[in-house]
Amino acid sequence: MSVNPQIQTVADAGERALIERIRVRAGQPSRWITTGIGDDAAVMTMNRGEVVVATADSLVEDVHFRRSWTAPRAIGQKAVAVNFSDLAAMGAAPRAVLLSLMLPPDTPLADFDAMVDGVVAECEAHGASLAGGNITSSPRVLAIDVTALGGVHPRRTLTRSGGRPGDELYLTGSIGAAATGLALLEGSVDRGTLADDLADCLRRYEAPIAHVRCGRSVAGNRAANACMDLSDGLADAARQMAQASRTGVVLEGKQLPIHAAARAWSERSGADPVASALIGGEDYELLFAVPAKRRRGFLAAVKRAQVETTRIGSLTADSRMRWVRGDDSFELPGGYAHFG
Amino acid sequence: MSVNPQIQTVADAGERALIERIRVRAGQPSRWITTGIGDDAAVMTMNRGEVVVATADSLVEDVHFRRSWTAPRAIGQKAVAVNFSDLAAMGAAPRAVLLSLMLPPDTPLADFDAMVDGVVAECEAHGASLAGGNITSSPRVLAIDVTALGGVHPRRTLTRSGGRPGDELYLTGSIGAAATGLALLEGSVDRGTLADDLADCLRRYEAPIAHVRCGRSVAGNRAANACMDLSDGLADAARQMAQASRTGVVLEGKQLPIHAAARAWSERSGADPVASALIGGEDYELLFAVPAKRRRGFLAAVKRAQVETTRIGSLTADSRMRWVRGDDSFELPGGYAHFG
Repeated sequence: MSVNPQIQTVADAGERALIERIRVRAGQPSRWITTGIGDDAAVMTMNRGEVVVATADSLVEDVHFRRSWTAPRAIGQKAVAVNFSDLAAMGAAPRAVLLSLMLPPDTPLADFDAMVDGVVAECEAHGASLAGGNITSSPRVLAIDVTALGGVHPRRTLTRSGGRPGDELYLTGSIGAAATGLALLEGSVDRGTLADDLADCLRRYEAPIAHVRCGRSVAGNRAANACMDLSDGLADAARQMAQASRTGVVLEGKQLPIHAAARAWSERSGADPVASALIGGEDYELLFAVPAKRRRGFLAAVKRAQVETTRIGSLTADSRMRWVRGDDSFELPGGYAHFG
Repeated sequence: MSVNPQIQTVADAGERALIERIRVRAGQPSRWITTGIGDDAAVMTMNRGEVVVATADSLVEDVHFRRSWTAPRAIGQKAVAVNFSDLAAMGAAPRAVLLSLMLPPDTPLADFDAMVDGVVAECEAHGASLAGGNITSSPRVLAIDVTALGGVHPRRTLTRSGGRPGDELYLTGSIGAAATGLALLEGSVDRGTLADDLADCLRRYEAPIAHVRCGRSVAGNRAANACMDLSDGLADAARQMAQASRTGVVLEGKQLPIHAAARAWSERSGADPVASALIGGEDYELLFAVPAKRRRGFLAAVKRAQVETTRIGSLTADSRMRWVRGDDSFELPGGYAHFG
């Protein structure tokens, strides 16, 4: 029994009260959620002719985040954003989220609330509803597994396997920032003294933005042959897209849109900024393979989504996976993989 | 580096190889999965007019199972079955599963394969496909989070909130067996020497059967006002159904279909078999609220599904939650809740 009469941990509150706290925080579900939190399962109505796009991804304590580094609200937000990024890469609109929380009994209730608030905020930012899930105790590790459900018309679905030799590769935003943000955290940086551009790297690591509008805009215009997101780095994404499309790939090192602070950070530590940016994970930018004849439609579609893109290379007829700088050609490095 | 040249743990194999092992084990996806394992997300086509039913549930090591007690294949199978039970309670047909695995690096590869085989076997038993998910390392605890997606026509959906005062309550199968199975494991029973009826309790705990056919049959006939499954025990299910339906509930202690071995087990340990059966969790039977005028249609529907049912009580106009035995009336006990 607690000596403090206030409820302070999730164990003090109990499972039913936690579900009720989630229900209150989630608010009124969207009209397409006909049964939401509190039944055996959620029920969702699809728009006529749409297919369901479904993805699940988890954040595990001490693997994907540390509670001592990152605020609980950001953890909740990121757990949803990384899933919405996968929906974006398929051209789908996020509709519903299921939240599986595995919580050590001593998790502070305030952290629980903040995590759920982060989940709900990210749902609302993209017009989706938190529609269900479950809570269980976990003896030693806090983990969040999120399932995101989206909808898209089947002829407007993007996959990573649709690329063709000769397709131009375009990348949204910039890369290297999230990896730099992680390096800052690993170096126990003092947030209060960070320069703006490094603070941006930290934000990019802790609160990635899912390019949902961009993915949908390009998919809706059928302006790309293939797409995937960059969760495990550009080299990994390019390699996987090429493998799935049965093509090779060549990336132009000089064209890569490397975040300025990430470039400076690499140079200061004696690393090659291009090599670092190729393997740095968690940027959640989108990589598109665009046939030359669709280039104008593609550029118009990303412009409508108010996203910057850079042409960074091509898919090729040969099977090599490489990046070039001037006359030098290098094998694409591997990306981050769990269990190495 | 391992001194043994054979690959033996998931860390030795690596994430990509693990995904490939899952893809091989999952086999060819059903025709409604138009994009399966290996892309950013799975894509599923719904039957015309159907809504999506979605649920997620996780099994966490040392909370829901112990690796020293239960074979990995059974863990995988149960992780899916408990989700299909939720779909069954909504009247939905299972179509697709997303599998999130959180694995300590030293998880033996043979255990990984067996868990995935269990997942696939349970999917196949109900005509569903393993369509996606993700794998991540987990520093200390093995956890499986499964999302199950099903389809149902909206007017044939069952919820727990549709009950009306006067509805008759019916329960499939028998209760108390799974809790007895767990007690056997906690008592470090020797499997080799178990009597058949106790071995059945162990099976009911480790390999629960989701009553998918029964749920769909009753829902398809619109023969029940409400339904839910018994994951946290009968008392809890009855209480939750009544709360959601804004009714009271009365259960007839003498009518409860208590598993014979569970009854004997309770009596031998000096416990009241009815009280034990009310709170024993994990039986995954279905509880139905049936209006008297639909009784014949209901009984015909469960008979077609070849499931036994027992009438065990009623929903009531007053708000009391109780069970009775002869002239004695008792408040319904609470069920198992995480963080109790």
